[in-house]
Order: sequence, then C-alpha cells, then structure tokens
Amino acid sequence: MIDQPLSKESADLERLYRLTDVVWGRDEPMPDELFAQAKDDAFAIVTGRWRHGSVHEMPNLRAILEVGGRHPSPQVLDYQSCFARNIRVLSCAPAFGPMVAEMALGMALAASREIVDGHNAFATGEERWLHAGNVGTFTIYNQPVGLIGFGGLARALKPLLAPFQCKLQVYDPWLPATYLASQGMTPVELKPLLETCKVIFVLAIPSIANKALLDYEHLALIQPGAVFVLISRSHLVDFAALTELVSAGRFKAAIDVFPEEPLPKDHPIRHAPGVILSAHRAGSVPRDLRHIGRMVVNDLEAMLAGLPPLEMQTAQPELVYRLE
Amino acid sequence: MIDQPLSKESADLERLYRLTDVVWGRDEPMPDELFAQAKDDAFAIVTGRWRHGSVHEMPNLRAILEVGGRHPSPQVLDYQSCFARNIRVLSCAPAFGPMVAEMALGMALAASREIVDGHNAFATGEERWLHAGNVGTFTIYNQPVGLIGFGGLARALKPLLAPFQCKLQVYDPWLPATYLASQGMTPVELKPLLETCKVIFVLAIPSIANKALLDYEHLALIQPGAVFVLISRSHLVDFAALTELVSAGRFKAAIDVFPEEPLPKDHPIRHAPGVILSAHRAGSVPRDLRHIGRMVVNDLEAMLAGLPPLEMQTAQPELVYRLE
Amino acid sequence: MIDQPLSKESADLERLYRLTDVVWGRDEPMPDELFAQAKDDAFAIVTGRWRHGSVHEMPNLRAILEVGGRHPSPQVLDYQSCFARNIRVLSCAPAFGPMVAEMALGMALAASREIVDGHNAFATGEERWLHAGNVGTFTIYNQPVGLIGFGGLARALKPLLAPFQCKLQVYDPWLPATYLASQGMTPVELKPLLETCKVIFVLAIPSIANKALLDYEHLALIQPGAVFVLISRSHLVDFAALTELVSAGRFKAAIDVFPEEPLPKDHPIRHAPGVILSAHRAGSVPRDLRHIGRMVVNDLEAMLAGLPPLEMQTAQPELVYRLE
Amino acid sequence: MIDQPLSKESADLERLYRLTDVVWGRDEPMPDELFAQAKDDAFAIVTGRWRHGSVHEMPNLRAILEVGGRHPSPQVLDYQSCFARNIRVLSCAPAFGPMVAEMALGMALAASREIVDGHNAFATGEERWLHAGNVGTFTIYNQPVGLIGFGGLARALKPLLAPFQCKLQVYDPWLPATYLASQGMTPVELKPLLETCKVIFVLAIPSIANKALLDYEHLALIQPGAVFVLISRSHLVDFAALTELVSAGRFKAAIDVFPEEPLPKDHPIRHAPGVILSAHRAGSVPRDLRHIGRMVVNDLEAMLAGLPPLEMQTAQPELVYRLE
Repeated sequence: MIDQPLSKESADLERLYRLTDVVWGRDEPMPDELFAQAKDDAFAIVTGRWRHGSVHEMPNLRAILEVGGRHPSPQVLDYQSCFARNIRVLSCAPAFGPMVAEMALGMALAASREIVDGHNAFATGEERWLHAGNVGTFTIYNQPVGLIGFGGLARALKPLLAPFQCKLQVYDPWLPATYLASQGMTPVELKPLLETCKVIFVLAIPSIANKALLDYEHLALIQPGAVFVLISRSHLVDFAALTELVSAGRFKAAIDVFPEEPLPKDHPIRHAPGVILSAHRAGSVPRDLRHIGRMVVNDLEAMLAGLPPLEMQTAQPELVYRLE
Repeated sequence: MIDQPLSKESADLERLYRLTDVVWGRDEPMPDELFAQAKDDAFAIVTGRWRHGSVHEMPNLRAILEVGGRHPSPQVLDYQSCFARNIRVLSCAPAFGPMVAEMALGMALAASREIVDGHNAFATGEERWLHAGNVGTFTIYNQPVGLIGFGGLARALKPLLAPFQCKLQVYDPWLPATYLASQGMTPVELKPLLETCKVIFVLAIPSIANKALLDYEHLALIQPGAVFVLISRSHLVDFAALTELVSAGRFKAAIDVFPEEPLPKDHPIRHAPGVILSAHRAGSVPRDLRHIGRMVVNDLEAMLAGLPPLEMQTAQPELVYRLE
Repeated sequence: MIDQPLSKESADLERLYRLTDVVWGRDEPMPDELFAQAKDDAFAIVTGRWRHGSVHEMPNLRAILEVGGRHPSPQVLDYQSCFARNIRVLSCAPAFGPMVAEMALGMALAASREIVDGHNAFATGEERWLHAGNVGTFTIYNQPVGLIGFGGLARALKPLLAPFQCKLQVYDPWLPATYLASQGMTPVELKPLLETCKVIFVLAIPSIANKALLDYEHLALIQPGAVFVLISRSHLVDFAALTELVSAGRFKAAIDVFPEEPLPKDHPIRHAPGVILSAHRAGSVPRDLRHIGRMVVNDLEAMLAGLPPLEMQTAQPELVYRLE
Repeated sequence: MIDQPLSKESADLERLYRLTDVVWGRDEPMPDELFAQAKDDAFAIVTGRWRHGSVHEMPNLRAILEVGGRHPSPQVLDYQSCFARNIRVLSCAPAFGPMVAEMALGMALAASREIVDGHNAFATGEERWLHAGNVGTFTIYNQPVGLIGFGGLARALKPLLAPFQCKLQVYDPWLPATYLASQGMTPVELKPLLETCKVIFVLAIPSIANKALLDYEHLALIQPGAVFVLISRSHLVDFAALTELVSAGRFKAAIDVFPEEPLPKDHPIRHAPGVILSAHRAGSVPRDLRHIGRMVVNDLEAMLAGLPPLEMQTAQPELVYRLE
C-alpha cells in the first residue's frame, strides 16, 4: 500500500505493480476508510509523513518506507513495537546524499572562487580582470577542509573532494577516532577544525545534543577569508551569531538551510557581504528525486523476497530517540 | 638569467640561486645592455614575453622558459633555429590546468544548480524554496558531458568530473578516435556533441583552424537548458552569435574569456538571462600561480643536469605554426 | 567480558581496558563458574564460538561480538530473543575482506599470467622465454570478469580491480538488478556469466540455497583457458565436478577453500594441471588479523556510548536463518 | 613503408592501409633492393631493429617507429641528423607498461602471500593450513613500498597500487625531489628506501650510470622477509650478490629479467628459497602486444596530418646517449 506517490519514472512504477498489490497509488492522501480496510493485510506502507499511529493493528506489517527524507519522529511512531517485531522503518535519506553533496561543492567553489560576486560585479560593469579579480580567492586543491559530521552526506561529498586531494579533518562525536582514521579521515576536535580549515562543511544531522553547537565563540574561530558551508541543518548553528560574523566580513558563508523557512524578508543575512544564499534547494532536483522511487522499489523487492533492504536507511534503536 | 620574476615562494627561489648564476632576478625588465653582455653565456632565459629576436647570438642557449602561459609567437621567436639546435622552448601552461579546471567545474555547477540566480533572487526577497526553486536545475551525475578540445585543460578537468560518472564525449580533430577511446573518452563529431550534451566545456587552445568554429549554426544545436562553459579562449566562438542565443534564453552559459578584455561596458552579454560571467579570472589565483616558479626551477634543475624538462610544455614543431 | 583474546596490538587492548571492566581477557576459554557469576551484569560478550545457550539469563546484554568470522549458527544462539531485545549480534567478517580480496587478486594473476607454472618450469630448467612462455596467458585489463556474490568480499575486491577497468558482471540472486546497476555492476544470470568471463570469482557466503550451485553443468560452461577463483567457500561448488574439469585441462583454477580441510593427501585436485592451491590461507595474515581487535574495540566504544556499531556486521533477521 | 609486421588486429591494419601507401607489409625483412627504391619518398619507417644506416639519403623522412620496445642505439642510428631535421624517433615502449606493471604486481603478491610456495607444498601434501600457512606472509595494504625508477613502468604500476594505499617511496636521480612530491610520491635516497620498504620494485631503464647500482652492500640493506621485484632490467643489479643473498634466505625475490637469457641451467638462483622466477615473460602477452599496432597507426595518422605523435615515446636528445 502506498500513501505517497513515488516516482514518475515508469520503469520503477511498473516494477512496483508487478511486484505486489498496490492498494493506493495516487498523488493524494489515502482515504482513512480505505486505510482501515487495508491495514490488516499490509506488508509495507510507503509514506511521506507517518500519520497512522501505532502499528499494533497491522499484524502483517514488515516495513514502513518513508519518502520525505527523515525517519518519522518517535512522537508519532511507536518504534519500540517496530523494533520488537523487526518491522523495518526505512528512510529515503540516502537518495539526497549525491545531490546535496554536489550543491555543497558547487556552493563552496562559488564562494572560494567568488563566482557570485564576480558575476554581479560584471553585470554592473565593475568587474576586475585577471589578478585584480582574484585578491581573496583560493583553490581547494590540497587545502585543509573540515567536515562537521561524518554520516551519509559526508560520505557522498568525500568522493567529490577526492580529486582535489584536500586534507580532510572530521569532527563527529558519534564516531571513535580510530574508526575515522580507518576511513582515511583525520579525526579532530571542533575548535582546531574551525581554526585551521579553509573550507568547513556542516553535514551533521540534527540531534538533541548538537543544537546550536556552533555558537558565537566557535564561529569566531574561523579564519578570515575561509568558507563556511551550511548545508545539512541550521539547527547546528546559532544563526544570529553566524549572521553577525558574516555581516562583519569575518569569513565567507554559503547557506542552504535556515532557522525559519521561508526566511523573513528583512533578515540581515540577505545582504551580508560575501554570502551565498540558496533557498533550501540542495535536495530537490527533479531528476534526482526519482532515485527515491528506485530505492523504494528495490527495497520492497528485496523485502518481499525475504531479504534485507539495501538502499534505504534502516532506523537504528540507538539513534531514533536522539534525533531532533 | 631571468627576465621575469617567478615565485615569491622562498624555497623555490633559494633552490634557483643554489642551482645556477642568476644574472637578473628583479621584478622589472632586464636592461638591454645587461642582456647584451650576458647572452653569450646564457644557458636558459626565463621570460614573460620574448623580445630578444633571434637566438643566433646566444650560442650556449639550451632553453627558453616562458612564464606567461603561452609559447612565444613564431613571429617573434625563430623556432626553426631552436628546433635545429635542440633549444627547449617551454611554456608554463600546465601550471594553469588545475585552477582553470576547478573554475570550469565551479562555473558549470553554478549554472546547472542556478547558484548565482538563486542567490540574487534571495538578496531581493524573491527566492523560491525547495522544489519551486529547482524547476530548471539538474545535477551532472551520469549526464552526457562534452569536451571541445582534449589537451591540458581537459586532462585537468577529467579527474574532477570522474566522481560524477559523466559520459564524456570529446571533439578534438587533432586526436585520432582510437587514441581518444584509449583514454576512456567517447570520440564524437562536433554537431552530435552539441546536440546531446547537458554540459559543454570549451577547452581547446586557439589555432588558425578553430577561429569562430562555434558559429551560430553550431551554437543553435545546443539543448534548451544545457550549460555552455567557455573557459579556454573566446577565439573559438562567434561571440555575437553566443550573445544572441543566450540573451534569447536558449541555453545557459558560463563565460570566463571574451573577445575584448576588458569587455565594453554596454556589451549585451552582461545582462543576458542565466549567464554567469567572470573577468578572465580562472587562471590567476595567487597561491596557485606559485606553481609556475616550482615548475621553472624543477625544469631548470633537470636541464642543468643534462636531463629533459618534466613539468613545462615543450614547443612541438608540428604545432607552433598552427597556434594563433 | 571477553572469552576470546582479540588483539595483541597494545593500543587497542589499552583502549578496551580504559573503556570498560574486562571480566576475562586471557587466551583460553573462560571458566564456566566465572561466566555464571558475570552474566547478570554483562553488557557485551566477545566470543570466538558461542557456547552460552540462551540469552535469557543475561538481562543487561546489549551485544555479542563474534571474532571468528561468521555469525553464530541459529542452532546455538537464540536469535529471536536477540532481535526482540535489540541485542546486537556482530560478526568480524568485514575484517577479512581486504586480505581475502588481495589473495583473490593475487591468485587470479598467478593463474592468468602463469606465475606458478612459469616458476616451476624455471626451477627444473624447462622454462620458455618471452613469447614462447606466454602462449596461454592474458592480462585482466578490460576483460569481462564475473563476480558470483556481491557481498562484503566483492566490495573489497571491487577497488582492487578498478584500475584494470574490467567489465564487471555480477550474479547475486539476493540483490535486485536495478540495485546492482546503481553500484556500477552489470547484473547477469549465472550461465552467461560463466560463458563469457575470462576470470570468475566465487565470493558468495554459503546459504541453504547455494549449496553446490556450481555443478558440472554450470562449470562446463566456463571458457577454455579462463580462470576460476574459488575463495569464499567450497560449499557453492560441486567439488568433484570441479576437480574433473580442471584435471581435464578445461580451464584454470585457483582454490583456497575445500570441502574437507585438511584435504585428503590423495585428492586428485592436488595434481591437476594449471591449478593453484592454497590451504585456506587467504584470511589469516597475522598483521591484518589485528584489525579484528580494532573493530571490536571501536564498536564496543560506540555501543557503550549508546551508539550503533560501525565496523562489524550486524546479524539481520532476514539472513541468519538462511545461512549454512 | 613497414619493415616489421605490427598487428594482426585487422581494424588497425585496415586503417593503416587507408592512411598511406604501405611499401612492404609482410612478416619478413624488406629486401634491400626494394628499400633502396623506396627510401627517397619514405615518410615513415616502421622497424623492429634499425639497420638502414644514416638518414641522409631519406630526404622526406619524418618518423622512425620502432616496434621492439627500445629506441635504436646511437651506434646504429644517426640521432644528431634526426634531431636537426625534426625526424621523430619513436619507441613503442609505452605499450609494455600496463602488462609489465600487472606482472610486477602479480609477482609481488605471489611473493608476499607465498602463493608459489604455498601451492608447491600443497602439491606434495605438505601444506600448512590457515594461520600455520601464514607465518611469513603479509598484505601490501598501507605498507611502505619502494619504486626504483619513476618512468613509464612506475607510472603504469602506480594506479594498480593505489587501492592498497601503500606509502610510495621513489628513488630516481633523474627527477627533482620537488617534482616527485608534485606527483604524490615521497622522494628518498636509495639506502633508506632499501632499509624501510616491505616491497621494492626495480623499474628503471638501463643507463650507463645505473649499471650494477644495486650491489651487495645495497642489497644487504633489504629487510628480512621483504619482497624484491626485479622487472625492468637485471642491468641495475649485481646478480651474483642478489643470488647469494636470496639463496641465504635474507629476503624474498621475484625476478623476470636476467643477466643472460636464457639463463644457464645450473645457475644457483633456480633453487634459491622463496624466489619466484619468470623467463622474461612480463612484456609478451599476445593480446596486449596488439596495442603496439594501435599506437603505430594512431601516431602515423597524427603525423600524416602534420600533428605530433601521441602514444609512442619520442627519443629525447638529453637521454638517447645515456641509455645502455
């Protein structure tokens, strides 16, 4: 049963219909009455936002496949029952990794090479040519680059950075230093990362513990002229402090996520010098969103064959209660 | 003898002074009188622009090292004598490859992901959020990408594109199809490249034959919404045709090189929709220009030891007369 | 509590002792009496072979870390209770991937380049020089290569094969074709894989379903002169059929795993032409076994901090009952 | 005109015949009389061994393409005239890089993992299983690896070693340390390389200066149990010293090239422990030799179009007189 359309890619849809009985496949919410009839037999539920309460009345349920990008909150889904019954709660978050990583790289290069400011100067006839137009620019080859958080986004970004041979430093309190070293990363504490890196990517998922982790004191450590890329969630940042420092020209910033979306029209970050802003656009590229459909159908195919899912991210009992 | 300063990087300069007698090492032109005295003994001349006529009166000359980015024109340097005497005429062009390739990728992503327009909309409070802000965007993963010219620039760009797993098509009339295939490229003619690629990079060096190769008829083949990146020389393009097509919104363009530099203030490309302009800034990043110094010293070190140069590009008898 | 020593690498051991109370850390089985005292409080048990029956009397148990290379059999461990209580049952199998993959590549090259036969001919003065010594050899560059099973071993082998640019074909009935394609693999059925590949690697783990999957009929499809590398488990092969075909010179084989170990002294495979035999040595390289210790300590560190394990392989409810 | 057959690959041959007039294309030496008639007009000569004296009587000659693997000796070819007239003297040596590099890796792994000895013990029923069979083995992951010579062979080997993440140390007196560092290599002196590396590859081409460079004193520095791979030329080694040290079990060796070929039947290296011998077989794999044909035709195609050759190696005035 599907209560969210997944992919217009007809090959994936056709595969889905060949695999199983689809109770509801339209691009609008499933009627409650129909849901009530179907829940006894449901093997899997594909959903954008879980709104079906406890799984107690779904005795055959084996999987919940979430297609919005984050696992359902423990406040709406009874995870304890899911874990005890080995019901897979799956998130399509991995589908976003590559497109968000590409945007993170694109925004970082736009900032380090001053592509936005360079263009805007050109449009108004104030461009500076050659060396004169490169006073504050740098390439990222061999530079110290910091990753705050080493989860799915960081793993999608790592190969894109590989040809630049950056020296990758990682801060991630959920991962032992020995493990990070085994992944070719240099594990560091947060402060030295902020102090030494020319480009800093915020890639961590929001947790209870990392709320406003990057406060004024931390952000003030960033080098003059360095590039700060905020791409996962603004939750990790004291946004007022970030706005103040960027507005003062202390470092460059590229920002895709905001504490309020839409952001108020009069928010001062809109006019900060050297900033590059994007309206939460990193993870919504039309063609790439279709990968969600492929992942859902692949994982349903595997689970219907009695095998584990492969592409979506399985909710872990250790993590679901820690996430914001 | 040096008639152009090369690197402020003290380690390279120190190596140079340890290697050989430097007749002139200041950041201003060498006085003619001093040149006249030194030319009898000169082993190598480092120069930004050759202005010393024939090499006939330099009997011990083994190398000319050019640090401006292109081999001297055959109109100012007597190549025939150089080739007959095995005098190496070396260009520092390879030093520019990585920084120009990075800018090419950065501008391509800025165009495909609409980073400049997205930011400018944000600054004026007209940004569109999430899917609404991604109507014409695409990622470059697995896309057909065309390279016009497969020389040094293309070779520097290739590793940066590798993690995106693009399908690379190459048009280069100087290279046999079998050779291109051996490099993992798909050799194609120019028209199918223009018709099928989502991103097109102009990377060829200017030659007599490729002047305005990309005329209106060719440029009009580019797909709606595709990205055209002009990064090597505007020589290859009918710039008026390009301006007309981009102004009409036929495709996106990212342009770093222009038929006149500086470009007239009233040139219509400055206000074309979806264009990203950069004032010939791709190859002038301060830190990266220092690689020129390293290359000059490394190649001098090799040649003084009687070995071939390694890093700079040796002028080839087949090519020097073809270049613009 | 540990009932199997893990690593002599002192740094890992020291980390372990700093992390937690170790009830038993000697290189001999833990006395039953001591186990009985400790089981009430045990958070994790590190073990080479599970021999402690049900987990019912271990109310605080959160993890079983197995250091022999395979998950405990469902006949000795009550997985249902483990899954219901979210007790992590972890295998150190990932530690073996790189060393086994290296051996698989080494044995494949030894077979394709006839390194063993070439050496043995040399030792007896019967070597053939240059072209005469290369009548049946081939390089693996660009060759069609088949992987039977795409689990941990295949993932460790994939990067080693990458520089050879082989055309990788995969047969794995547990993975949807669309998923394999998303990993850059060409999904195929078993028969065409056997018929077309120049090198075939058997990499699957043993399951109830794949017992003697490669029977006479299948093995007879392998091309003359191709290389068959048996490296995961002989369980997948009808070993008598393999012996017959290799003895008849139908193809080359490199074999590290056998139906009986030690193999009887008079087994005919010992003298088959073109065979390369190794006495289950791929996964026992001393230095590399220490990675098991690192993984155990890293995952304990994560789990003691309330986080999911990172490096070892978590038993999956869908798979444990399928494995042999 | 061709005086050596190149490729049986019909596509390459067909291309050749379409490109130009082929005066002689048979697999036997060109008759002298025919050569005398043709030399006036000859644009290029493809040859296995130059035997045509001076180029003075070949006024239109633009290229000599050698298909045996080394540039003609200065004792048989008048290089001075070739350089003065810009006649390209091309060697097919690059065609051998990949196949020799693969063999070097294969022999190194056969030695480090004891694949030959392990097999031979198995054949005689004396194999040791599991850990017992791995007493002296090691994997090459993350190991210090030394390359003696960083020319074409080393560049072909480098990508094959890349996935093992070895720490590559290079000794090459023809290359500045700064240049080697720019290639990602650690430049070292010869003695520390020999003392610290677990695998040592001899990859240099023979020169007047490197004759028996690796004498007893140097070879005695190699670590016990390390692997010494002699793959380019035995010229670089005091072979008697190597034989003595390997026979004494001081380190492992894998040898493809010998001071006399064929090697005397009673040479003691044939029975040294832990040695792996190959009868100069690394560069003679049938399918891969066909790349020579492709390279010859590609470079002829380029040169007939007035362009520089691309794939073969152009003789350099600085080097031809230094080579043995």
